[in-house]
Amino acid sequence: MAIPLFNSIAAISHCTNKRLNTISTFDSLKLPPIHKMKKWVSCSPTDSNSLGLEAGVWLNVGTHLIPHPNKVEKGGEDAFFVSSHGGGVIAVADGVSGWAEKDVDPALFSRQLMANASSLVEDEEVNYNPRNLIRKAHAAVSTVGSATVAVAMLERNGTLKIANVGDCGVKVIRKGRVTFSTSPQEHYFDCPYQLSSETVGQTFLDATVTSIELMEEDMVVMGSDGLFDNLFDQEIISIVGSCDDVSDAAKALANLAHTHSKDSSFESPYSLEARVHGFDVPWWKKLLGMKLTGGKLDDITVIVGQVKSSMS
Amino acid sequence: MAIPLFNSIAAISHCTNKRLNTISTFDSLKLPPIHKMKKWVSCSPTDSNSLGLEAGVWLNVGTHLIPHPNKVEKGGEDAFFVSSHGGGVIAVADGVSGWAEKDVDPALFSRQLMANASSLVEDEEVNYNPRNLIRKAHAAVSTVGSATVAVAMLERNGTLKIANVGDCGVKVIRKGRVTFSTSPQEHYFDCPYQLSSETVGQTFLDATVTSIELMEEDMVVMGSDGLFDNLFDQEIISIVGSCDDVSDAAKALANLAHTHSKDSSFESPYSLEARVHGFDVPWWKKLLGMKLTGGKLDDITVIVGQVKSSMS
Repeated sequence: MAIPLFNSIAAISHCTNKRLNTISTFDSLKLPPIHKMKKWVSCSPTDSNSLGLEAGVWLNVGTHLIPHPNKVEKGGEDAFFVSSHGGGVIAVADGVSGWAEKDVDPALFSRQLMANASSLVEDEEVNYNPRNLIRKAHAAVSTVGSATVAVAMLERNGTLKIANVGDCGVKVIRKGRVTFSTSPQEHYFDCPYQLSSETVGQTFLDATVTSIELMEEDMVVMGSDGLFDNLFDQEIISIVGSCDDVSDAAKALANLAHTHSKDSSFESPYSLEARVHGFDVPWWKKLLGMKLTGGKLDDITVIVGQVKSSMS
Repeated sequence: MAIPLFNSIAAISHCTNKRLNTISTFDSLKLPPIHKMKKWVSCSPTDSNSLGLEAGVWLNVGTHLIPHPNKVEKGGEDAFFVSSHGGGVIAVADGVSGWAEKDVDPALFSRQLMANASSLVEDEEVNYNPRNLIRKAHAAVSTVGSATVAVAMLERNGTLKIANVGDCGVKVIRKGRVTFSTSPQEHYFDCPYQLSSETVGQTFLDATVTSIELMEEDMVVMGSDGLFDNLFDQEIISIVGSCDDVSDAAKALANLAHTHSKDSSFESPYSLEARVHGFDVPWWKKLLGMKLTGGKLDDITVIVGQVKSSMS
C-alpha cells in the first residue's frame, strides 16, 4: 500500500503578469533584417509568444502557472516574467512558504523580485548577465520574505546564460534528450538556497552560473520545483515532443505535474528523493510492504521556450 | 539472485602521456603577480599537478587511468591530456571499441585526437573555445576509427568552458553537491555520439557546449564513461570530499569504479540504465526474482581538478 506525502485539494489555472521590453537588432550574424516580431497576447492561463528579433536567434515562449490548491485565491506564491530583450529572457521565482508562519505573505517577495528583474532587464549594469540581474533585482526588494529564483537570458548568438539560486531550474531538450540541466541547490532536503530579506539568506554570489550554446529547435523548459518534483525527465521529453505548440506544451506539463502532485500513490521524483534522504513510512508500515510515495503539492510554474532562427 | 552484465578479469593501473604548455599571465583581476607554478611530475599511474598561473584562478589536477582488463598490455583505448594553458585545460577521449571487429585498433583514433588537441591548445583559431579545439583536432586525425570526447578549458576569470561529443563527461562538485553535470549524447543505449574518420559520424557541430562560473575549491571531475557508468554521484561526492589530494581522489575514484565494474551483483548506473532501456534477464529468471545487475567493464579515465585562486 502506498503512503502519500501530502493531502490534496482541487486546483485551478492562473497566470501572473508579465511585460514586454523593446526589441534589439540582431547583427552578429550579419543577416539582413527580418521582421519576426509578434505582439504579446494578453494574460491568460496559458500564454504563447514569439520573443522576436529583427534577425537571428530567439525564443518562442509559452507559459502556464497552476497555484497550490490551498493558495488559489491569491494566485499562489510563484511569480515569473518573460521578456523579448536580446533573444529572450525568462525567469521564475518561488516564494518560500515558511514565511506564512510569521504572518508574512510569501508571495510578496517573489512577485517583487520578478517585477524588479523585469524592469531591470535592459539595465546597463546588468549587461546581459543573469547574475547581475539577480543582484540588482534582489537589492531593490523592499518587502520581507525569501524566494528561490532562476533567470535565463538568450543572447542573439545562441548562448543561453543561466543563473539559479535554489531549486527553480532549467532543462534543455535536444533531439528527444535532456542535453542540459541545472542542479538544485539545497542546504538540506526541502530547504533550498534562497534570496532573502534577511542577512542569513543567500545572495547573487551563491548563484550557480552556467550557459549552453543552443541550437535551432532546442526546447528550453524552465520551472519552479513544483514542476521538477512531480515530473521525471522522460515525461517532460515525451510531452514536449508530442505538443505542436509551446503553449500547449507548458499547459500539458503543468497539468500532468499537478495531477501527479495530488496522486498519493505516484512515485514522484520528490518521494524518491525523500526516501534517499531517509524519510519514509514508520517501520511497522514497511513490514507491511508500504513505502513513502506521492507527488508534492505546490505552486507549479512552467515556461517553455522553443529556439527559432531567422536563418531557417 | 543477481545476474551480471559482464565477466571480469583483473586490471592494472596505467597512465598516458600528457604535456605542459606555457603559462599565461592573469591580469583581469589586476592582482600583483604571484608565482604558483609547479613542475609536472613524470608520468605515473596517478599524477597531480598545479596548473599554475602567475595570478588568478587555476586547476590543481590529478589523473588516473585503469585500462579494461582485456586491454592492459596496450594501455586501453582511452587517452587524455592536461595543459596549464589559461587556467588549465583537461580533456579525455574514449576510442570506440567496435572498430576492433574491423581489425582497427580503437586506441589509435583517441590517442591521435588527444595528441592533436594537446598541440593545438594555444592555436589562435582555437581562441580558447573547446568546440574549436575539437574541430581542429578532429580535422587533423589521419587514422581510421572513432571516439567520444570531452574538453574543458578554464579561463582565468573562472569560467570553465566545456564541449563534449558522446558520453565522456564533466561534473562540478561544490560544497558537497553536484552543481553541474554534462549530459551524455547517445543515438541509442550504448551507442554514443562519436567523432569519426567516416562521414557518418558526428562533428564539432554536434558537440554540446556549456560553461559554468567556477568558485574556489570547486572540484571538477572529468571522466570517460567507464567512470560514470560505474559510480553514482553520491559516491563521487563522498570520495572527492574525503581525499586531501587531487591525485588521491582521482586514484580512489578510478579504483572504486574498477571494483564496481567487476562486481556482478552491483546495481551500477549502467545496469539501471540498461533496465530502463528494456534490457534484462530472461522472463523465467525474473520469475525467480533475478534482475540485470553488474558494473560495466571498461577503460576508466579520471581527471580531478581543484579550483585554486591566488586571491586566497
